[in-house]
Amino acid sequence: MSKDKIVRMEHGAGGEAMQTLIRDVILKNITNRSAGLVGLDDLDDGATINIASNIHDSERSDEIVITTDSHVIKPPFFPDSNIGRLAVSGTVNDLAVMGAAPLALTCAMVVPEGFELDSFEKIIRSMNAAAEEVGVPIIAGDTKTVDRNGLDSIIINTTGIGIAYEVIRDCGLCPGDRIILTGTIGDHGISLLAHREGFDLNTDLVSDVAPLWNMIRSVIPIRTIEGKPAISAMKDPTRGGLAGALNEMAQKSGTGIIIDQKDLPIRGSVSSACEMLGIDPLEVANEGKAIICVKDENAEEVLSIIRKHEYGKDAAIIGEATDSNSGKVLMRTTIGSMRYVDTPTGDLIPRIC
Amino acid sequence: MSKDKIVRMEHGAGGEAMQTLIRDVILKNITNRSAGLVGLDDLDDGATINIASNIHDSERSDEIVITTDSHVIKPPFFPDSNIGRLAVSGTVNDLAVMGAAPLALTCAMVVPEGFELDSFEKIIRSMNAAAEEVGVPIIAGDTKTVDRNGLDSIIINTTGIGIAYEVIRDCGLCPGDRIILTGTIGDHGISLLAHREGFDLNTDLVSDVAPLWNMIRSVIPIRTIEGKPAISAMKDPTRGGLAGALNEMAQKSGTGIIIDQKDLPIRGSVSSACEMLGIDPLEVANEGKAIICVKDENAEEVLSIIRKHEYGKDAAIIGEATDSNSGKVLMRTTIGSMRYVDTPTGDLIPRIC
Repeated sequence: MSKDKIVRMEHGAGGEAMQTLIRDVILKNITNRSAGLVGLDDLDDGATINIASNIHDSERSDEIVITTDSHVIKPPFFPDSNIGRLAVSGTVNDLAVMGAAPLALTCAMVVPEGFELDSFEKIIRSMNAAAEEVGVPIIAGDTKTVDRNGLDSIIINTTGIGIAYEVIRDCGLCPGDRIILTGTIGDHGISLLAHREGFDLNTDLVSDVAPLWNMIRSVIPIRTIEGKPAISAMKDPTRGGLAGALNEMAQKSGTGIIIDQKDLPIRGSVSSACEMLGIDPLEVANEGKAIICVKDENAEEVLSIIRKHEYGKDAAIIGEATDSNSGKVLMRTTIGSMRYVDTPTGDLIPRIC
Repeated sequence: MSKDKIVRMEHGAGGEAMQTLIRDVILKNITNRSAGLVGLDDLDDGATINIASNIHDSERSDEIVITTDSHVIKPPFFPDSNIGRLAVSGTVNDLAVMGAAPLALTCAMVVPEGFELDSFEKIIRSMNAAAEEVGVPIIAGDTKTVDRNGLDSIIINTTGIGIAYEVIRDCGLCPGDRIILTGTIGDHGISLLAHREGFDLNTDLVSDVAPLWNMIRSVIPIRTIEGKPAISAMKDPTRGGLAGALNEMAQKSGTGIIIDQKDLPIRGSVSSACEMLGIDPLEVANEGKAIICVKDENAEEVLSIIRKHEYGKDAAIIGEATDSNSGKVLMRTTIGSMRYVDTPTGDLIPRIC
């Protein structure tokens, strides 16, 4: 069978190959793709259901927000965390970056025969701890087993239902908006890679996986002097890393983005590991970080609130949206040159979520 | 490692082992398990979110209903259907048996590297056809790939969001209620088993997988003379078959159930295959059938409406709920004796959904 007629690893990696598969095979064949403001075509972090039109004639514009993710990370236990905390955090964060408070989660697990019950219970406890952190109940589930020849590690799907008074999109960026990153990049992907491959990074680097709703909810109500929402767009830089998320935001918003390398929060251990391994830290997945785009006048206020949170203490303004270079991301490097930051095409570190 | 400290196949099979795992390992460790009328503890076909309390002060009692299922059926293509139609139908049916109109579906796919793109597209088209049949949009998704050593077949999670003016439970059965089964039992499990194992059943038996909402919606509005809902409980007899579903309904409702073997709709080919293979057809999974419990006075009306639908033409009244034998299911056999119908303990036919 020729290489272009089968599914390849990069089809699930969050880069261009996946976008092509989604557009050419999935979207093309689905007739009804929307139930509200944000649908399947938007390829946002989730979608919305306009509940007012289904339920009552309210004048409020609340939308139910829904997002789903299947987590296949291997091994399921990694430095300081596990697939359970990741599954809950990932879904809570997809709701959060759309401006939605989590109302409930569902959890569907596929477990290989022979998986240790102790490990299974640890994973459930971690799911619970992450869910408790943001006060979201887990209300429905499903458990399937697969023979050990058919599956080698646990897979957890979490779907989240949230509610947003105002939905925040990943396409709302306007020229002049400032771009806040809520913490250091690459911690999750690099700590996982080191753990899996047995590299000794000579550091206490651990995954950053965390549920961000408590932090994000504190900045959603902020308004400009004119009373408009201060936040114009949000996204979490998971698969495809910061490079993938920023490119998607620039393309969807029709703006350019310029970031400053010197302002990028990054740990020394991540930086040197990336150099050693020939990996661009901008392309490495994060699981406890958000990109928050805000009106210039509110940037310092939002930043200072974010920094007060445990998960936002390393937050920084890393750049801004521009009129020029529409759909492109540029980086001013520490040596003063400018370079394009492209959408990652493949998957350098598979199974990171 | 001792046998009781690992996950075994029957932990995901829909029988008693799974119930024990859910109660002792999952429910015990989850703190918040409810967001409305039906929560995780109820182990119903889905759960509900009381949206009124979250969204507005409506006097209506609409509840958002949510259900999730990960489908691991192997092979993904089986007689007359495939995992895509199954994934949409299974989730639509879990909403339907709770009385909920489907508002939207999400779809998260885990695809092994090397999976044929043609097959992938066929699956998507089948999902779309099933979704179109009941008019439900697919609004959000996720695509992950796994290396071929880690997974041998596609896994599809579908989560459904529905809305119910009155939620129908699987615990609402009352003594005297009549039990309607909407069609023949065992078609899905037996056709799949024959296909997978290469048995020639000398028949055109195919899977019954179908989305049942259009049929079920037509009987939900029916009322008793006193104006009460005619339907007291519903459930779809999937994993664990009719035996599993009826036992769950009897236990949760605190009634007994007596069914009549002579009234059970079953195809000759299924009956003889079960006999040959030593399988109880009551324990075989169905994917296009529902158990509808109705007040005695409405039973014939509901049955005649169900029979007018394509998916209900073989429907029959198979038994009734009783005061005696609380929590137990009994069957009057064709030779006139009575026997207990127990909850299946293991998994005779794995990977049927």
